[in-house]
Amino acid sequence: MTDTLIKVDLSQSAYDNDMVHNRWHPDIPMVAWVKPGDDFIVETYDWTGGFIKNNDSADDVRDIDLSIVHFLSGPIGVKGAEPGDLLVVDLLDIGAMPDSQWGFNGFFSKKNGGGFLTDHFPQAQKSIWDFKGMFTSSRHVPGVNFAGLIHPGLIGCLPDPKLLETWNKREVDFIATDPNRVPGLANPPFGPTAHMGRLTGEARDKAAAEGARTVPPREHGGNCDIKDLSRGSKIYFPVYVEGGGLSMGDLHFSQGDGEITFCGAIEMAGWVHLKVDVLKGGMAKYGIKNPIFKPSPITPNYKDYLIFEGISVDEAGKQHYLDVHIAYRQACLNAIEYLKKFGYSGAQAYSILGTAPVQGHISGVVDVPNACATLWLPTEIFDFDINPSAAGPTRFLDGSVDMPLSPDLV
Amino acid sequence: MTDTLIKVDLSQSAYDNDMVHNRWHPDIPMVAWVKPGDDFIVETYDWTGGFIKNNDSADDVRDIDLSIVHFLSGPIGVKGAEPGDLLVVDLLDIGAMPDSQWGFNGFFSKKNGGGFLTDHFPQAQKSIWDFKGMFTSSRHVPGVNFAGLIHPGLIGCLPDPKLLETWNKREVDFIATDPNRVPGLANPPFGPTAHMGRLTGEARDKAAAEGARTVPPREHGGNCDIKDLSRGSKIYFPVYVEGGGLSMGDLHFSQGDGEITFCGAIEMAGWVHLKVDVLKGGMAKYGIKNPIFKPSPITPNYKDYLIFEGISVDEAGKQHYLDVHIAYRQACLNAIEYLKKFGYSGAQAYSILGTAPVQGHISGVVDVPNACATLWLPTEIFDFDINPSAAGPTRFLDGSVDMPLSPDLV
Amino acid sequence: MTDTLIKVDLSQSAYDNDMVHNRWHPDIPMVAWVKPGDDFIVETYDWTGGFIKNNDSADDVRDIDLSIVHFLSGPIGVKGAEPGDLLVVDLLDIGAMPDSQWGFNGFFSKKNGGGFLTDHFPQAQKSIWDFKGMFTSSRHVPGVNFAGLIHPGLIGCLPDPKLLETWNKREVDFIATDPNRVPGLANPPFGPTAHMGRLTGEARDKAAAEGARTVPPREHGGNCDIKDLSRGSKIYFPVYVEGGGLSMGDLHFSQGDGEITFCGAIEMAGWVHLKVDVLKGGMAKYGIKNPIFKPSPITPNYKDYLIFEGISVDEAGKQHYLDVHIAYRQACLNAIEYLKKFGYSGAQAYSILGTAPVQGHISGVVDVPNACATLWLPTEIFDFDINPSAAGPTRFLDGSVDMPLSPDLV
Amino acid sequence: MTDTLIKVDLSQSAYDNDMVHNRWHPDIPMVAWVKPGDDFIVETYDWTGGFIKNNDSADDVRDIDLSIVHFLSGPIGVKGAEPGDLLVVDLLDIGAMPDSQWGFNGFFSKKNGGGFLTDHFPQAQKSIWDFKGMFTSSRHVPGVNFAGLIHPGLIGCLPDPKLLETWNKREVDFIATDPNRVPGLANPPFGPTAHMGRLTGEARDKAAAEGARTVPPREHGGNCDIKDLSRGSKIYFPVYVEGGGLSMGDLHFSQGDGEITFCGAIEMAGWVHLKVDVLKGGMAKYGIKNPIFKPSPITPNYKDYLIFEGISVDEAGKQHYLDVHIAYRQACLNAIEYLKKFGYSGAQAYSILGTAPVQGHISGVVDVPNACATLWLPTEIFDFDINPSAAGPTRFLDGSVDMPLSPDLV
Repeated sequence: MTDTLIKVDLSQSAYDNDMVHNRWHPDIPMVAWVKPGDDFIVETYDWTGGFIKNNDSADDVRDIDLSIVHFLSGPIGVKGAEPGDLLVVDLLDIGAMPDSQWGFNGFFSKKNGGGFLTDHFPQAQKSIWDFKGMFTSSRHVPGVNFAGLIHPGLIGCLPDPKLLETWNKREVDFIATDPNRVPGLANPPFGPTAHMGRLTGEARDKAAAEGARTVPPREHGGNCDIKDLSRGSKIYFPVYVEGGGLSMGDLHFSQGDGEITFCGAIEMAGWVHLKVDVLKGGMAKYGIKNPIFKPSPITPNYKDYLIFEGISVDEAGKQHYLDVHIAYRQACLNAIEYLKKFGYSGAQAYSILGTAPVQGHISGVVDVPNACATLWLPTEIFDFDINPSAAGPTRFLDGSVDMPLSPDLV
Repeated sequence: MTDTLIKVDLSQSAYDNDMVHNRWHPDIPMVAWVKPGDDFIVETYDWTGGFIKNNDSADDVRDIDLSIVHFLSGPIGVKGAEPGDLLVVDLLDIGAMPDSQWGFNGFFSKKNGGGFLTDHFPQAQKSIWDFKGMFTSSRHVPGVNFAGLIHPGLIGCLPDPKLLETWNKREVDFIATDPNRVPGLANPPFGPTAHMGRLTGEARDKAAAEGARTVPPREHGGNCDIKDLSRGSKIYFPVYVEGGGLSMGDLHFSQGDGEITFCGAIEMAGWVHLKVDVLKGGMAKYGIKNPIFKPSPITPNYKDYLIFEGISVDEAGKQHYLDVHIAYRQACLNAIEYLKKFGYSGAQAYSILGTAPVQGHISGVVDVPNACATLWLPTEIFDFDINPSAAGPTRFLDGSVDMPLSPDLV
Repeated sequence: MTDTLIKVDLSQSAYDNDMVHNRWHPDIPMVAWVKPGDDFIVETYDWTGGFIKNNDSADDVRDIDLSIVHFLSGPIGVKGAEPGDLLVVDLLDIGAMPDSQWGFNGFFSKKNGGGFLTDHFPQAQKSIWDFKGMFTSSRHVPGVNFAGLIHPGLIGCLPDPKLLETWNKREVDFIATDPNRVPGLANPPFGPTAHMGRLTGEARDKAAAEGARTVPPREHGGNCDIKDLSRGSKIYFPVYVEGGGLSMGDLHFSQGDGEITFCGAIEMAGWVHLKVDVLKGGMAKYGIKNPIFKPSPITPNYKDYLIFEGISVDEAGKQHYLDVHIAYRQACLNAIEYLKKFGYSGAQAYSILGTAPVQGHISGVVDVPNACATLWLPTEIFDFDINPSAAGPTRFLDGSVDMPLSPDLV
Repeated sequence: MTDTLIKVDLSQSAYDNDMVHNRWHPDIPMVAWVKPGDDFIVETYDWTGGFIKNNDSADDVRDIDLSIVHFLSGPIGVKGAEPGDLLVVDLLDIGAMPDSQWGFNGFFSKKNGGGFLTDHFPQAQKSIWDFKGMFTSSRHVPGVNFAGLIHPGLIGCLPDPKLLETWNKREVDFIATDPNRVPGLANPPFGPTAHMGRLTGEARDKAAAEGARTVPPREHGGNCDIKDLSRGSKIYFPVYVEGGGLSMGDLHFSQGDGEITFCGAIEMAGWVHLKVDVLKGGMAKYGIKNPIFKPSPITPNYKDYLIFEGISVDEAGKQHYLDVHIAYRQACLNAIEYLKKFGYSGAQAYSILGTAPVQGHISGVVDVPNACATLWLPTEIFDFDINPSAAGPTRFLDGSVDMPLSPDLV
């Protein structure tokens, strides 16, 4: 049997597990060492460490302290990996915990992190998704059922001190340009809720005060939330410290391109079976700055899509210059309006775009002043036909079921 | 035999063909009427009306007056189509002209339109691509050969006066925010080079002065440059005027997501075999603002990709807020650096990203402050193996062949 | 422009075109020579040389003299190709004649060739299929519309005298085991209707008396009727004579695995754009007896199938030993029964299985005594939903349209 | 957590587990009842009940008493299912036992069952395949590594007495046509090694003497060995007895079309997570005789194949009439010869064809006298390039590793 290098106990606080951490820092000690060619299993908490519950209230989504995320398992050292190498990671398989066959999706309150469409959905809402083998469906979002493209939202190697400093300076300077913005432009280091793995005492406190937050994707990969880093894919990570220091977490049962709902995809606790290897000097050999990867030979092969276009003119009619973010937002809003014609609430439609294997393509970025983005909605995930027809849309849902909403507390 | 509604003679100036126009305006007269259910063929010039030649100089790319583009064939009226309807267009087939089995790709000078990477490639360059059946290759970019995903870069219906006014005001106001920018923020109406189809005299002059430029994609679709609008796809266009007024042009033999080279994809003259139908009242029934479409059952099914990540930190290390445009630019630059290790010049690598069936995905847009975009490069288009290996990259190209470059004239 | 090496005039008898032949014989003179690396176009008649017409009577299917088939274009010599080499053929593109955008499918009378289900459909029937760009539909088989997987049913190199002798002896001996069987076990050489290309006089008569019939696939490939030899595929053919002598014909707009209707797929006249190369000594190097090939990167990517199983127990309940032919026949009959529930006549259902991109898999061939074959019917080709449901099947067709049938003449 | 209805203990004899049986008979008692809509897990032995071991000797493959197979888990009753209904089974997921991450493939001696190529490989041989997440490789067959298309080789409902009688008569009569053939034409009922589940005493003995052997696929499905009945697929089974009586086993980690090695695919013990439903009166409504199914949305999407043709002329040059079995055998032999050029032994090549996701297509079955079958070998499963090239094949393997062989005992 394959060794499980890191175990997690979902009934225990993630802070009490010293093989877990929630900041990036080169001083976090390796919790295990493996050799190139080894395969092994790593268990992980969900990104919130179990804060969000399988129930019908969005209070937890509203009330969560986001400075605690993401709880990552690791870091794992790979013998012989040195700065400048590429760490080759095969994701051999990924699954949910056997006794935790569910995940959550939600929208944060605009006051607590928000999301891609936070101006349209400013209040905390939540949906729970049950897993049945390779498939998932939700009691809060009827009429859809799809195969998951399981992946870690977050995976990467430890930064070295110089890279860490670059990150912190870059982001802190950026926050300073609009420090009171809600939601914030970025998240600075924050010691009190830091979990620095096996670091203790002063060393812990020092690193906690410097540790980069795990929210953004960065040069090392990290929280890329790329739905296609799925089981069966192969990733080449830059190595910055001796041994690499590979950590991972934030597992998703499924996600649409963009992870637009932010909280998040279909978030779950689970395990990753992975294999590691080292490509010596690979960063310079191949001119690598960010990770590169190859997709899995096993993926849900949806083929029939309904595709929505969006351009970089915002909801108020204002022109933006080749802004793909805004163009994609328009495509998402267009898809939500369409789905509402079949009986979904806006929140349910938003949740579908955040969880199902939706594709988001950068279709045109040169035709001034408008970028064009497309959102690809797989039609096969629906229990009914959502294609346009001369008869017009049928309202398959009667509105009796919706996602729980928890208004902001005053 | 299927009727060819609009013919073009490549040896004739596009200005002399009255079934062609290069501005959007509701007054442009229909050049033909068809019935719902009809199928027919439309020939088109390349987007420049033949200005760019099949030779080994980029002078034409440098010298083109971009106020002449795009030369569109149409407008075609569909009986019974009324404002508020959806015009359903099946692209039954698309091809190059039998006696014009080639296309061009290039980069405009930064002084004359630029492109996605104009700061990195500020001079005019050009590559010529020959077609062999369904495949294309270039004498200027050795080592790649791929099946085209043929599509019209530009297709859509005429705007009504109100929509036209919205466009013009929105874009003229936008230009006013930085009127001297090079390249310009957008393109205002410009009468002298306008081709208003069958309009003549004062009516022509009035419309020419108001006609919206064809460059950006807008609510009606237009210049979306979506590579997946390929033969076999089905599009639902909003209708704004009686008969719809469908026009099309800017055919591409192949293009990567984003059409990052701007000049452009693999641009060609050719023909489109299409079928039209009308979905009455479809805009309101389905809440449609922009066109929606369904992909073709016949597409190049590349499967093996090398995927490059980019985040919204720019080349200078500056932080941007969830900016997908910048993230995609980094992914493109990362791919170019990688390809250079195999012997390509930067320009050749850039050209490959603009022409081959590259995918651009919006992978993460919520993890503040970094957006994450991915560029999917199909490995199967190369004559050699571009995957990473322990041996490192082999330089398959010796640099003896490059793309013609024409420096800016002083 | 690419050269058209062989032209055909559909208004002229195929016998009057000396670049056409309908038998395999090493003495047939090359009609053109090309070099390795060349690409060129070859036009072909439909396999019957125009005997079957675009009308609503099956009389021509009933009355055809099958000794005239197949009219092939060629042979083409490739300089430097020698016995033992592999001739590498890229099918760059394939199409129907511009002025002949239709094809036919039919069943021969059991007395005149029959077909896979001739005991169930013993009379001549015909359906006509119209092409609209990449799609086809039939006025005789309503409710289906699909993208064609265009391919040559027949392509291969000339045999040498020894191989020809092997073929003739093998098949003539076989016929002798049941010489009066209807339909016949095989077809012996038959001089009177032979078309030997540019051979004349005694040489023609001698070769005509020996020339192998074109009906069966053999070691050289020939009439394989493999639907996946589509445009974009690459084939490696054994070479037996100096120059190879490549001939082709029997173009199909689309076909299901097995070409079960025999007359045939959707048969058409058309053109092939191909490129040739030579792999020296390839037969011995790779141990090649029959051609091998690689599929196209561009194929209709149907994904949703309804799959029918069949086992090697025949319609009368009789047991056969691991007989895949009978197992596939049962799978086909099962599919026909299923389709009849939706309103199709048996003949229409049979025609769909013969023409649409149906897959036939050899699923199990070791579980004595039953082979198991599966027929994969793409659901997306139908205008209506053919999946099983609790409500049971809806009869979408009212039986008012059927395929023309011409009873045997007494 | 999902209920595990049937558990198996791999350290215990399958004969001691009364929720297991190895014959088909209507009297075998249900071991559990579920309701339409329920999902649950079923564990199964490998088809031999653990007889074949993870070691480097083929003695067990040589010595096995094949009258003991297949050990199936069930039967399971579904409330409300009645004769004439269709039992709708969703295969939600399938896996190997956590502590048994390996499987076996082998060839039986010609004296003990044989296989598709038993005349070429008449002795017992075995290979062991290790599972790493979704991938498998073998210490006995170097150079291949592929994602499994996991499926039950055997699944179906209990026959009623009439159907059982039909089976027994049909097969016993058939055996009588050549009773001394080696290997036998079929397998008659055989009481001594029968495991009749919870039947005891005289009832057990009577049923054991009548129970149909599990080897062949039949009208109810059963041992179809269809590689595409993979996790994610949906099957519609005919129901013959009250409750249906669904049993399953013979799990395969991966298999090529045909399961040509017979012993077998990559055989394993494991578990199936399935969901059941009932389609009332479905057999008559849809004209169903054999099961039908729909493929999974998640499958290994291999795209690049090398395809081998075979025709119905046997190894000795003898002509057969449209015999797909023989045509497929030739295609398999052609592929084996090809793979030997890269250094594989014939046995290793045969094993690859039996285990990897190879496709077998019935390409032509009407061109008298030759059937044409094609074997599709995915090129991506190999660690090296197996495509033809001008340089000729490289021998990547040095022959130092081969599959264990155990000669027949005298």
